[in-house]
Amino acid sequence: MNRKLRMGMVGGGPGAFIGAIHRMAAIMDGEIELVAGAFSSDPQKSKQAGEQLNLDPQRVYPSYEEMIKKEAALPEDKKIDVVAIVTPNHVHFAPTKLALENGFHVVLDKPMTFDSKEAKELKSIIEKSGKYFCLTHTYTGYPMVKEAREYVKNGKLGAIRKIFVTYPQGWLSNLLEGADNKQADWRTDPSRSGKAGVMGDIGTHAFNLAEYITGLQVTKVCADINIVVKGRKLDDDGSVLLKFNNGASGVLMASQIMAGEENDLTIQVYGEKGGVEWKHTDPNTLLVKWLDAPAQILRAGTGYLSDVAKHNTRTPAGHPEGYIEAFANHYRNFALCVKASIDGVKPKPEWLDFPGVEDGVRGMAFIDNVIESGKSETKWTEFVV
Amino acid sequence: MNRKLRMGMVGGGPGAFIGAIHRMAAIMDGEIELVAGAFSSDPQKSKQAGEQLNLDPQRVYPSYEEMIKKEAALPEDKKIDVVAIVTPNHVHFAPTKLALENGFHVVLDKPMTFDSKEAKELKSIIEKSGKYFCLTHTYTGYPMVKEAREYVKNGKLGAIRKIFVTYPQGWLSNLLEGADNKQADWRTDPSRSGKAGVMGDIGTHAFNLAEYITGLQVTKVCADINIVVKGRKLDDDGSVLLKFNNGASGVLMASQIMAGEENDLTIQVYGEKGGVEWKHTDPNTLLVKWLDAPAQILRAGTGYLSDVAKHNTRTPAGHPEGYIEAFANHYRNFALCVKASIDGVKPKPEWLDFPGVEDGVRGMAFIDNVIESGKSETKWTEFVV
Amino acid sequence: MNRKLRMGMVGGGPGAFIGAIHRMAAIMDGEIELVAGAFSSDPQKSKQAGEQLNLDPQRVYPSYEEMIKKEAALPEDKKIDVVAIVTPNHVHFAPTKLALENGFHVVLDKPMTFDSKEAKELKSIIEKSGKYFCLTHTYTGYPMVKEAREYVKNGKLGAIRKIFVTYPQGWLSNLLEGADNKQADWRTDPSRSGKAGVMGDIGTHAFNLAEYITGLQVTKVCADINIVVKGRKLDDDGSVLLKFNNGASGVLMASQIMAGEENDLTIQVYGEKGGVEWKHTDPNTLLVKWLDAPAQILRAGTGYLSDVAKHNTRTPAGHPEGYIEAFANHYRNFALCVKASIDGVKPKPEWLDFPGVEDGVRGMAFIDNVIESGKSETKWTEFVV
Amino acid sequence: MNRKLRMGMVGGGPGAFIGAIHRMAAIMDGEIELVAGAFSSDPQKSKQAGEQLNLDPQRVYPSYEEMIKKEAALPEDKKIDVVAIVTPNHVHFAPTKLALENGFHVVLDKPMTFDSKEAKELKSIIEKSGKYFCLTHTYTGYPMVKEAREYVKNGKLGAIRKIFVTYPQGWLSNLLEGADNKQADWRTDPSRSGKAGVMGDIGTHAFNLAEYITGLQVTKVCADINIVVKGRKLDDDGSVLLKFNNGASGVLMASQIMAGEENDLTIQVYGEKGGVEWKHTDPNTLLVKWLDAPAQILRAGTGYLSDVAKHNTRTPAGHPEGYIEAFANHYRNFALCVKASIDGVKPKPEWLDFPGVEDGVRGMAFIDNVIESGKSETKWTEFVV
Repeated sequence: MNRKLRMGMVGGGPGAFIGAIHRMAAIMDGEIELVAGAFSSDPQKSKQAGEQLNLDPQRVYPSYEEMIKKEAALPEDKKIDVVAIVTPNHVHFAPTKLALENGFHVVLDKPMTFDSKEAKELKSIIEKSGKYFCLTHTYTGYPMVKEAREYVKNGKLGAIRKIFVTYPQGWLSNLLEGADNKQADWRTDPSRSGKAGVMGDIGTHAFNLAEYITGLQVTKVCADINIVVKGRKLDDDGSVLLKFNNGASGVLMASQIMAGEENDLTIQVYGEKGGVEWKHTDPNTLLVKWLDAPAQILRAGTGYLSDVAKHNTRTPAGHPEGYIEAFANHYRNFALCVKASIDGVKPKPEWLDFPGVEDGVRGMAFIDNVIESGKSETKWTEFVV
Repeated sequence: MNRKLRMGMVGGGPGAFIGAIHRMAAIMDGEIELVAGAFSSDPQKSKQAGEQLNLDPQRVYPSYEEMIKKEAALPEDKKIDVVAIVTPNHVHFAPTKLALENGFHVVLDKPMTFDSKEAKELKSIIEKSGKYFCLTHTYTGYPMVKEAREYVKNGKLGAIRKIFVTYPQGWLSNLLEGADNKQADWRTDPSRSGKAGVMGDIGTHAFNLAEYITGLQVTKVCADINIVVKGRKLDDDGSVLLKFNNGASGVLMASQIMAGEENDLTIQVYGEKGGVEWKHTDPNTLLVKWLDAPAQILRAGTGYLSDVAKHNTRTPAGHPEGYIEAFANHYRNFALCVKASIDGVKPKPEWLDFPGVEDGVRGMAFIDNVIESGKSETKWTEFVV
Repeated sequence: MNRKLRMGMVGGGPGAFIGAIHRMAAIMDGEIELVAGAFSSDPQKSKQAGEQLNLDPQRVYPSYEEMIKKEAALPEDKKIDVVAIVTPNHVHFAPTKLALENGFHVVLDKPMTFDSKEAKELKSIIEKSGKYFCLTHTYTGYPMVKEAREYVKNGKLGAIRKIFVTYPQGWLSNLLEGADNKQADWRTDPSRSGKAGVMGDIGTHAFNLAEYITGLQVTKVCADINIVVKGRKLDDDGSVLLKFNNGASGVLMASQIMAGEENDLTIQVYGEKGGVEWKHTDPNTLLVKWLDAPAQILRAGTGYLSDVAKHNTRTPAGHPEGYIEAFANHYRNFALCVKASIDGVKPKPEWLDFPGVEDGVRGMAFIDNVIESGKSETKWTEFVV
Repeated sequence: MNRKLRMGMVGGGPGAFIGAIHRMAAIMDGEIELVAGAFSSDPQKSKQAGEQLNLDPQRVYPSYEEMIKKEAALPEDKKIDVVAIVTPNHVHFAPTKLALENGFHVVLDKPMTFDSKEAKELKSIIEKSGKYFCLTHTYTGYPMVKEAREYVKNGKLGAIRKIFVTYPQGWLSNLLEGADNKQADWRTDPSRSGKAGVMGDIGTHAFNLAEYITGLQVTKVCADINIVVKGRKLDDDGSVLLKFNNGASGVLMASQIMAGEENDLTIQVYGEKGGVEWKHTDPNTLLVKWLDAPAQILRAGTGYLSDVAKHNTRTPAGHPEGYIEAFANHYRNFALCVKASIDGVKPKPEWLDFPGVEDGVRGMAFIDNVIESGKSETKWTEFVV
């Protein structure tokens, strides 16, 4: 097909953070254009956002229900192909379901749903729909994260023994909720965020990253889940001991009260022969360590990387790509698949490399299991999906 | 105005590097859409590029002359507003002139022209045209570079004494030209690149960065200009001693034969009280050093930065932005100015912060002066514009 | 007193690592001279070591018992003042006891003893002896670790909330024991090392560092203790969730199977207002992070540090000190106390800042508690001394 | 021989910096003991220093002349073997000459002499004396600097094309001289320091490092030499373009007015195939960069290094050594040679690897040539020894 995919967005109005990221990531590669939106549950705010985004006012809707219905009724050469949903967690399930049932492919912000029950139901809906579904676990979009996975997959590190993943933030060191901070408000509110705070917000990213790179699955957790800031309703700090299905051990730490920390997600994976280390503060570098040889600095954009890393890179070595490009890699791969689907052709294997329903279901199970473990007096909690 | 600006591109067809960067940078913020192009001097290649970019075939042209003429003839609500020119240096002057004379605003890749004569003539054309002109010296688009300039401007460092700027690359360590490497070919060819190799390609970036951050001007140069790789026609390595108009001294080094280096452009500026250091490998950080106090790590996306840094940032602290976003900052500021111009309103001061004609003319003078100094047996060569 | 202290050494013969470190650390500041030794349980090896060390053959002994007895019988102006004991763990208690009972001050390598029972007994012996006792937990000797403690102590970080300490090594990734590797042999042998492997060898260092910097005490542990390499008899990997006596949480990780890692002991401590981070790979730097202000890079040797940091520094800023100097700080402070004691004067408070019997007893308790927790199915194990 | 070498020191009394470094470096390996000294030209201060150093008062002398004469008259089994001279530059020549002529081996702080004339005369004296002479250019004592030299020597980088060496300091950003700062006083005083300030003090280190690692010799210089701080008498900042005897180009920068900088001496050497980078802030690491392969991180204390690097290392990988150990490497190698000489045996080749008379003479020539070039209006000044 010789046109851009047309996208409508749910959420992402004034005060939102992730909606703007989705928009930039979606359009920057020229595969998708934003043509419609229901940007807020407040119709006035939705309209205002549409104006700022230079959209046709006819296609800026007061609610996602109306957007999906009306867009579905438009002629084939005009209506949207894709719905991007960037609302708080409690408004993930319903618009996703509605969009899929009306024939749209969906991009959804993580975590997948408000709870595991919704996640499993959504899984079944997605599978029935035959549509593509992308869950934006950003960090697996980085080319050097993909390179790390290649190192594990190709056995270069030997059998994996140890996984260490930490996601420190400091922005919730004080009680910001209730102080007109929209981001803090919903993320710490059980009625909108779900049963977890930090573990749902960023713990799921760390969990997803660990399983993505290693190709392993967590089988047991032992969690220390804390509410550090007085008056907060959900966890803002936690550390989890992990066991994986090959016997490897691990640690996952996620916190939003490590004052002065930004988003330094870091993962270290060690096998019998060596290890890989990736840090979000220097995302275009993958450090590869060897038992009895010098460590190597692998860099995005170089000729010696795997094809999958190259496919997810836009600039030559030394011209840093960042968070938006990692996000855009998911959008681009998703878009290539959707286009192939519209054209009735088979997608290339590397296009299928974006997070989806399985990541979503396991992410929700992660939340369940660590929250349960946090309350348990028994050391190990089986990881149940 | 409630629409995106419409852009046509000259150059950037198959095998090009910078054209793709321009496209992503132009569109990612939703202020510009690419609707037309003359992507290659080979009409077939131009057509092919247009298809890949999902453009209307009617607006993919076999030459820039045709694009400019035909677009100029389109109705106001359809024709392009902006021409982006991303060709090799010898094809900068003519399309820019033609575009301006046909009423289009222009974004042009650096260096401005093939030689200084063209640059001065273009300056006069631009000034007469009343149109906006943006010269994409990428690095001044980074928010932490802008923060560095604020530190100097606000006197936090005291009077500036020393500037140290280095741009090491290694990709031309071998004679790649003539070996089917399009990038190496034209950059080392005097008939397309002009009188300088590395000094024009990346030396001008380093020069521009130094003058931008310090607000100073180079007044004398002493250059050691080398052709290291046998068979090469233009300089691939050079070091330049600098004197600035306030008496400060400096060093500028640019090389393409430092094997293993990527694009680690680094600048250090020192005043009486302290210094700032910015590195392209870690572009979201500005290191501020003090005479008798701990150095500080300033980070993009934080609340304590200047307004100008914040205006040029898209993500919260810790979510790295990169090269494309720095590029996009120039495009966005340029676009905001163009839109204000179309709306007949005054642009905000921070929108005017993109490189333009003065940067271009001084950049061409830099090439002239360092190449002349490189041949001279006298130590200091006056910097003549 | 106007002379160097005289020291005799137990252990540290051919093939030893830590004995040589002790010797350099002891003598480099000119406060101590090595004059005697029983360097090996093999008299021939002891003799050989003494020759290499340029010692008077009369004062090189075949056993520590003989050294202590014979030195005790020497005249005051000749006999040793101090015994340094650098043997494997199972030979810590007896020589320390004998040395103290014969009137010598003692420096002992960590962990204090073979087990907790010995530790408590030794505590009582030390207290009765009236002699100085130094336990060489190296890392608290670094000036920037001391600066970190000052930051906590002075309340600059607010109440402490989170402690994260990791000590990764990779050298035991393969089964080196039994392959003529003296270091691996005894460290993995329960009859010489005690009940713990990695947790005793380096876990105790991490534990000591955390309690030293924060001034807090661990009250509960939840440990995942692993033997990763097949055939090994003691733990080579472990992660521990921690609770401290002010309610703070923490994680301690120590491993010797993280292939490619050296000794990158790292500690991060966070309070309400900010955090400190110290890394053994860059020991002359302390990173101080703030909630809403730029992080600061504190550097050893600068004028803005605390007096205690300055007292433990030998070089101006930018001239790196390292492991041996950190070790030497303990020796120097110990020596200054011993000299004061001999002179009958009171030591300065900063001289008393070296690890001693309390560190030793708690370190042995750490081993007990984490090994017990590792076997327990209950999540939290009370930290019992 | 089965004893330590006996050393007497000239200079290094109260207020001195480098004298204390020499003492720690000399004694830490147990090869040398300090037994005598003339620590100040003020006899009272010399006496006081001797007391603090626990020396026999009989061997603390009021002048170096007296020390050398009296020590020379002592019996063979008591008198010193080595004289260490750590005075300001104008008191280098005379005590060195006197020491050599009285049969002592000499360690001398750099630069070798007050001027080149003295240096050449001293060269002839040293050669006639048959004694060992060590000039303490500290930085070539680092094991990873030695590893860098091995990489060049073994051709791993191909023919060397570019050398970039920078030594930034900031401590002389203000006019400290005359303000009771002994270090600033003599270093900026032409009557004690010689004709150069920063170029003699640290420029010579950078120069020595460049020639040591590359095995090349500078043949031409083009220097910009500045006095930045008003009222200062000697240069405090300078940058030098370099040509080497194989045609390679380079830059050397040394400054003491880069506010906030400590001692971040950095060298980068590039050949046809790759480059090496060493930084004094992380001295146990050597970065090796390759044209089309990942960069490697070589670390001190590892098994994969050259024998010469290993010989100059005391700790296992990850236990950082620093400035004092680099210094001590020169002392140890020197001591091993002196002992071999006393024993009448041939030194091992790796023991001879310490800086000596040739380094000294070339260092003085460096000062002459850059100061002359700084005054010249001609671009290139031939490097004359």
